[in-house]
Amino acid sequence: MKESREQRRKRILERAKEGLTEAYSSSDHSISQAINAYKEIEKMKGLVFERLEEWYSIYFPEIRIGSHEAYSRIIMSIGKRSDASEQLLTDLIGDKGKKVYEAMQSSYAKRDMEEKEYKAVKELAGMELQLDDIEAKLDSYLENEVKRTMPNIAYLIDYRIAAELLGKAGSLQRLATMPSGTVQLLGAEKALFKHIKFGSKPPKYGVLFKLYAVTNAARGKRGRIARAYATKICIAARADAFSKRFIADKLKEQLDKTVEAINKEK
Amino acid sequence: MKESREQRRKRILERAKEGLTEAYSSSDHSISQAINAYKEIEKMKGLVFERLEEWYSIYFPEIRIGSHEAYSRIIMSIGKRSDASEQLLTDLIGDKGKKVYEAMQSSYAKRDMEEKEYKAVKELAGMELQLDDIEAKLDSYLENEVKRTMPNIAYLIDYRIAAELLGKAGSLQRLATMPSGTVQLLGAEKALFKHIKFGSKPPKYGVLFKLYAVTNAARGKRGRIARAYATKICIAARADAFSKRFIADKLKEQLDKTVEAINKEK
Repeated sequence: MKESREQRRKRILERAKEGLTEAYSSSDHSISQAINAYKEIEKMKGLVFERLEEWYSIYFPEIRIGSHEAYSRIIMSIGKRSDASEQLLTDLIGDKGKKVYEAMQSSYAKRDMEEKEYKAVKELAGMELQLDDIEAKLDSYLENEVKRTMPNIAYLIDYRIAAELLGKAGSLQRLATMPSGTVQLLGAEKALFKHIKFGSKPPKYGVLFKLYAVTNAARGKRGRIARAYATKICIAARADAFSKRFIADKLKEQLDKTVEAINKEK
Repeated sequence: MKESREQRRKRILERAKEGLTEAYSSSDHSISQAINAYKEIEKMKGLVFERLEEWYSIYFPEIRIGSHEAYSRIIMSIGKRSDASEQLLTDLIGDKGKKVYEAMQSSYAKRDMEEKEYKAVKELAGMELQLDDIEAKLDSYLENEVKRTMPNIAYLIDYRIAAELLGKAGSLQRLATMPSGTVQLLGAEKALFKHIKFGSKPPKYGVLFKLYAVTNAARGKRGRIARAYATKICIAARADAFSKRFIADKLKEQLDKTVEAINKEK
């Protein structure tokens, strides 16, 4: 029996849909999703903390500690000045607790938060801690998935940076078929566009700027180091996507040598 | 005993600090904090939902419902196709559940999420629900505080818009001493700046654009209606800040008449 036109149309459409779903539900697509969510959460943490500090510090200006988490924990337990004790503060933030407590005794902020207001602030602090928690979970998911899906790339660079590269490229397949110059500039699309359109300086790196070896190199050498990384990442990506062999130990050795040589130059 | 120079310096500094703390821990300052937090949370909800939908819809493209909350609830209970039943979906989203269930049966997305991935997505969905919850709490805090602190303004306009005006003005005192033209443009600072610097069209309203009466007026009348509101808001603000008398019922009557007259004009 011959297939009718309508039947063929349906069959082809069906196959295309399946292909699409297949492509999008592969594990590298999950990594892109997770890294995007991770970065969003990171931003939110900053925003919530800003609000939190601005609000709470009116009542407790003397609490200044580096950690967002510790700050949020303090808010969860201290709403009124009378809630604070040296013991509690030491439990929450360790040795610094004593200092903070002393500073609070001579504080010029005497008015206490009203109960209703404190509840609202506490909600925000809880949110901050929740975000911390989700971030940690996404992070461990990312670490597992990246190391499983891209063992070679993950051996060369931090798994978070690897995930970002993947997210920018769209898929492992695409990352693996990109020229290294493109990989070097992934994440620098805006700067590249500006360069092309307005003739500003061309960018030297995008996501790869976050690499320790790049950030910590002398200014004039960063571009070349990013380039060296991009080259090896491309080879690693091909191994991860196609041959599935582990070759990253050798790549890493070569890469370290190249970077060392660049850093030694005068 | 005469006060030494050092002592006087200390005493004056102390008093200044007290004044500052007093000013910042007043209840209108809490309202500014709360409305800022509220708006931040609102934005976050949108961002988390975007991520969530992008991720989850790969596996369940047939679930398309208007409510972010319902969508998140579905995610909390359905990770695999086999988790979904007509009963469950109807419990979660009512009558639509049947339709969604049917659509899922003929879906082209056959692959299930892996357990680890589902956990990560579920976390995000939980976050969305949490944000909903915090938003509701901040909202009810705002409603109470605004109605208590600014009963006159809150009688004329929505308490959220009142809170935004207050946030932009900095304090009730400042809002109460602003000319009505300034109140009309609160929240339109960017457009105003553009107008002054580049000669673009001057803005006609800022935050007040959110008023139902402004949004729903004919284009050519919005500016004048915003102006009418601003005038009455200023009078109401003065009553809230200084005389503490309730005069908003009369103001509202006049305002309604003015707006009606503007709307009737041809």
